[in-house]
Amino acid sequence: MRWSQFYIPTIKEIPIGTEAVSHQLLLRSGLVQMLTSGVYSYLPLGLRVLRKIEGIINEEMNAIGARELLLPSLQPMELWKRTGRDETLKDVMIQFKDKKGRAMCLGPTHEEVITDLVKNHVRSYKQLPVVLYQIQTKFRDEMRPRFGIVRACEFIMKDAYSFDQDEQGLRKNYELMYTAYQKIFSRCGLKIVIVEADSGAMGGDISHEYMVPAEIGEDEVLCCDACGHACGINKGKDGSGCPACQKGTLTKKSAIEIGHIFQLGTKYSKALDVSFLDEKGQKKTVVMGCYGIGVSRLIATIIEKNNDAAGIVWPKEVAPFEVEILPLQVGDGDMMRQADELYDGLVRHGVDVFMDDRDESPGKKFNDADLIGIPYRITLGKRMLAEGKAEIKDRRSGTVFAVELARVAEKLKEVLR
Amino acid sequence: MRWSQFYIPTIKEIPIGTEAVSHQLLLRSGLVQMLTSGVYSYLPLGLRVLRKIEGIINEEMNAIGARELLLPSLQPMELWKRTGRDETLKDVMIQFKDKKGRAMCLGPTHEEVITDLVKNHVRSYKQLPVVLYQIQTKFRDEMRPRFGIVRACEFIMKDAYSFDQDEQGLRKNYELMYTAYQKIFSRCGLKIVIVEADSGAMGGDISHEYMVPAEIGEDEVLCCDACGHACGINKGKDGSGCPACQKGTLTKKSAIEIGHIFQLGTKYSKALDVSFLDEKGQKKTVVMGCYGIGVSRLIATIIEKNNDAAGIVWPKEVAPFEVEILPLQVGDGDMMRQADELYDGLVRHGVDVFMDDRDESPGKKFNDADLIGIPYRITLGKRMLAEGKAEIKDRRSGTVFAVELARVAEKLKEVLR
Repeated sequence: MRWSQFYIPTIKEIPIGTEAVSHQLLLRSGLVQMLTSGVYSYLPLGLRVLRKIEGIINEEMNAIGARELLLPSLQPMELWKRTGRDETLKDVMIQFKDKKGRAMCLGPTHEEVITDLVKNHVRSYKQLPVVLYQIQTKFRDEMRPRFGIVRACEFIMKDAYSFDQDEQGLRKNYELMYTAYQKIFSRCGLKIVIVEADSGAMGGDISHEYMVPAEIGEDEVLCCDACGHACGINKGKDGSGCPACQKGTLTKKSAIEIGHIFQLGTKYSKALDVSFLDEKGQKKTVVMGCYGIGVSRLIATIIEKNNDAAGIVWPKEVAPFEVEILPLQVGDGDMMRQADELYDGLVRHGVDVFMDDRDESPGKKFNDADLIGIPYRITLGKRMLAEGKAEIKDRRSGTVFAVELARVAEKLKEVLR
Repeated sequence: MRWSQFYIPTIKEIPIGTEAVSHQLLLRSGLVQMLTSGVYSYLPLGLRVLRKIEGIINEEMNAIGARELLLPSLQPMELWKRTGRDETLKDVMIQFKDKKGRAMCLGPTHEEVITDLVKNHVRSYKQLPVVLYQIQTKFRDEMRPRFGIVRACEFIMKDAYSFDQDEQGLRKNYELMYTAYQKIFSRCGLKIVIVEADSGAMGGDISHEYMVPAEIGEDEVLCCDACGHACGINKGKDGSGCPACQKGTLTKKSAIEIGHIFQLGTKYSKALDVSFLDEKGQKKTVVMGCYGIGVSRLIATIIEKNNDAAGIVWPKEVAPFEVEILPLQVGDGDMMRQADELYDGLVRHGVDVFMDDRDESPGKKFNDADLIGIPYRITLGKRMLAEGKAEIKDRRSGTVFAVELARVAEKLKEVLR
């Protein structure tokens, strides 16, 4: 991919009215654009990040036997009345009557819809467990959207749902999800704190939140200054459930909630009457779990935790590209030939490469490279090329080193894998 | 992937209240499920088809320099007032007021939003052309949803938009799209008829529709019984613009519209004031085109044109899987070992393979295989295995042939590529 054929409207200045660094960098590096308060477009570079994260989620969900589907946003209110959540969630639900007079809403979540979907199919214990998930747009009538895509009216979530014969089955799937979430966030380059949490409007007994300590967070966790270990309090609880750390002082820190998993039990399956026949031919109620990741919010959180004064510093697995080639003089035919050769060679090696082929000053191109934060930058300049070399810069460490042109691909594969 | 770990709720009977064969087969083969009239969930098998089609679209869009982004569904009505389409489209738009009192709608299309987005960036002729597209959910308050996902309230579209300096640039991008659309539909296994059409609510001068003659179609085309060539009439026009065929009789046929491309000109860029400075430093208005594919409808159309009494007959490139392995006795350890070996071998060869590992009768498994319509089925039975062979069935031709186990992968690669 080449910059001139892409669409990356970078901005030098800090946009007016933005508090969070992640919000500023999302806008400045041309990842997203605001349409109206709380509503954002993902520009091509931002969509690439989203797709990389979706790829990680798909791999980890698939590995634990969860299957992807896609549920509708339009939902009949009648379904929500049956679980009583037309009341619980009415403050955030976008509702309207359609031309046929049906009371409808835009899904802020999908427990009701998926429970109804599984009800139409599952009859016997032989068909269980079923674990399904989707990565999909959700809607909330948010009175005070904040921090860009952290708290928005339209946002992307991964939501998974497990259906089991009994509590034991639920606990097994819950543990699989618990671990899969750790892997997902670790691959996204985040250090998380897992907190036993209040189930709130979701219902059920046990639930855990995945938190990332960060200044802009609207939740709180307790962190130990000695061992680095953190346990948590949050909205619902007052720290009472949190075991005191033996080694040091616990201090409250703000944190962003990026994931939340729930052992729902039979709340939804009872309300919507989802039952099956067990081995003995007896009718039983399906036992459910649900598992969410705030995908848009996850992008903001990654940026919030990975940036410096010059811009974003993407973790490798979620970077829009792995490597950026930056030829200093695009008017120089010889230099561009070498840049193209390098580009093609890296593509052949399976490296996700990008070239800044714009006819702009070196200063502008260097600044933009730092701003959009691709992990490795290869600079091609006249003097280096005369020696048959290119310069590689590691965005995170700032380390710069010269490598023979013929060995660039090899060197990059070494640092990337 | 294995059937037992997937989620494919096949149905033997024709569902009540379904007219179109495609609608029946979408439900019966566990591709989609209805939530409420005009609103459907994509089940895992249906989502695989959707992803294959998205893959084809992405490749062909990328090949002509179009870049993918993702625009919001929530849109401020204020933007629609500026182009006057708050009136033109008011019958199909889902509108509501949010908690802040903003008049909002769910995007039935995205000309206004993308024009506003590009306006924030483009200043100079050097930044043009820009061609952007998305594959995204659209909403229409459809009074009479029909034929399943053919005419629905929530559906998936690919919509692309081109921004050029002048009419000449627009025509060039229009031609690129025109050809890319032919490739996309051909790869989906469809024979299309391209019809010069009325621009309707979109505005602009020149537009073309991509039609597939089919019984359930709500549009019409003229087809020549001699040469097979078709030209079209449709809603807006009365056949007057259609050149008479020299070779045979023209007959009216029903057709489904699966794509529509428009030379919009300056309708939206003028209304929203999107201008740039040309080479001479003079202010000019950007010239636009827009290009749509009804992705959900495309899936229904493919099924409508590719089925027989037993079920769906997927074209190779859009089939949920390319090959299905069907071991007759899953209780037979030896047979399952050979099935697993075959499965792993095909995966290694890059074949998209699926196994029906259910403990069901051969009859049930054969029927379901025909119903879900995977292009090639490999049956493993005791007698054949004793001879070191498996049976391959071509779903489309019905041809069955025996192949040595060691040569199955090779044979399949031959027929698939």
